[in-house]
Amino acid sequence: MSMLLKTKPLASEVSESIIEEVNRCKGKGIRPRLAVILVEGDPASAYYARVKEKKARQLGIAFDLITFRPEVTEQRLLDEIGKLNRDSAVHGIMLELPLPRHIRLQTCCDAIRPEKDVDGISSANKLACMTGGAGIYPATPQACIRIVKHFGFSLQGKNVVLVGHGETVGRPLMQMLLRENATVTVCHYYTQNLAKHIAGADILMTATGCAGLITADMLHPELVVIDAGISETPTGIVGDAVPEAVDAAKAVTPVPGGVGTLTTVLLFENLLHAIRLQEQSKEV
Amino acid sequence: MSMLLKTKPLASEVSESIIEEVNRCKGKGIRPRLAVILVEGDPASAYYARVKEKKARQLGIAFDLITFRPEVTEQRLLDEIGKLNRDSAVHGIMLELPLPRHIRLQTCCDAIRPEKDVDGISSANKLACMTGGAGIYPATPQACIRIVKHFGFSLQGKNVVLVGHGETVGRPLMQMLLRENATVTVCHYYTQNLAKHIAGADILMTATGCAGLITADMLHPELVVIDAGISETPTGIVGDAVPEAVDAAKAVTPVPGGVGTLTTVLLFENLLHAIRLQEQSKEV
Repeated sequence: MSMLLKTKPLASEVSESIIEEVNRCKGKGIRPRLAVILVEGDPASAYYARVKEKKARQLGIAFDLITFRPEVTEQRLLDEIGKLNRDSAVHGIMLELPLPRHIRLQTCCDAIRPEKDVDGISSANKLACMTGGAGIYPATPQACIRIVKHFGFSLQGKNVVLVGHGETVGRPLMQMLLRENATVTVCHYYTQNLAKHIAGADILMTATGCAGLITADMLHPELVVIDAGISETPTGIVGDAVPEAVDAAKAVTPVPGGVGTLTTVLLFENLLHAIRLQEQSKEV
Repeated sequence: MSMLLKTKPLASEVSESIIEEVNRCKGKGIRPRLAVILVEGDPASAYYARVKEKKARQLGIAFDLITFRPEVTEQRLLDEIGKLNRDSAVHGIMLELPLPRHIRLQTCCDAIRPEKDVDGISSANKLACMTGGAGIYPATPQACIRIVKHFGFSLQGKNVVLVGHGETVGRPLMQMLLRENATVTVCHYYTQNLAKHIAGADILMTATGCAGLITADMLHPELVVIDAGISETPTGIVGDAVPEAVDAAKAVTPVPGGVGTLTTVLLFENLLHAIRLQEQSKEV
């Protein structure tokens, strides 16, 4: 009865259209290029940077990994971002998070030229995402919504419970869900009786990074679960929902193989969008 | 049993502290001054501008009403905003909304210098309100939260149903409620079974401008209702909730005499905040 929402086929479909667009770009003399800045010290960040590198190669996209020691100064990072902003051969800049604590996160995010900010972390893109304006929206919330639609579930008028309202996923996702005309309930650490909220939901989206927060007894057979949580455990990556969740709900995205798989590809879709924005700003 | 949350005493209390601060400013040679730009054609806007003028006089604040004909060009408005931005004797600029359709709203909003944008409508202040950063937040959502706290109700961990997510009230209010650690459900036109959502709420905040949307049968004796809706009717101003709502809930803000009464005063509190921001930016 229940359904595992594996996103590999959807990710492959999106990848194919990205490859076509990359080839069109190359035909016009543009070789799409993503620069990823990695400050060493967080093993997960290093892993995700490698995942992107592999995917870039598959898609025919040039990839630069720029690595810094954990003690790098903020000014050094800002200088590097400035250089990449000015380099017309680089179309997207991504800062692997988290950064060490001595570096001001938003200062670095805002240093990225919005048209190259493929992860949507600059203030200009955050505002665009909030208001529905032109800009680059973060990939993970986009993935959550794309998955729901791809598998034929609707959002308009549906009750969506969103667990977590962090900067990178929950907060932009909340805005995007409202633009899809969903009724959105935002739950978090202080929410009392999370299970009761989920009981009234058609769709549950969770992005807390608390492994096992969503237990099978909270779910019901009509519920679609989109699990954007990621936690590293000794046995691998797990989501916010326990593995048994799949039997208690109508449909659940697996971790790995769900939201994250599509997110990686959508980052490159954002890169192509960034190229279009850069071409437009040249024309003006 | 039920309680009418009249805000006049709270508004008077805030007014007194504003008058003290205005006097301190005058002692330092600063006469707080608000400039309101009114494009004629909307009777409600003209009325609200007059309400502000009267309140400014009570508070000892200088007030300029700058009136334009409905056919004014966008450039003429932008020129006026630019002039007010540069005028160091003017500390706050407010654009009465709505504007005629031939004028781009956000372009005008963003022309206002953020440190003088006492209504929090510029992109910089919207972003600040979204992220909890330094800036000027819109007065109506601030009023909604102040009323709840003033009457001794708490927000942390409480279920708040917010009806309406418009630019000026609902959207910023949603962010502010999340920062108060409330569990927030955002309902709107597409929401199915609004009554069921309200049944599970501790606090209902409504800002739709649909008179009578909230009927007494939707409410329950434990519910606190904050009505930020305003509709003009032949018999006067009414809120989103029907008048009988007060008997069906624990506590309800009246319209008029509720959210709007406090909002007018908080606009001037924002003006004093604007003066502090302008003093700080001089020091830098």
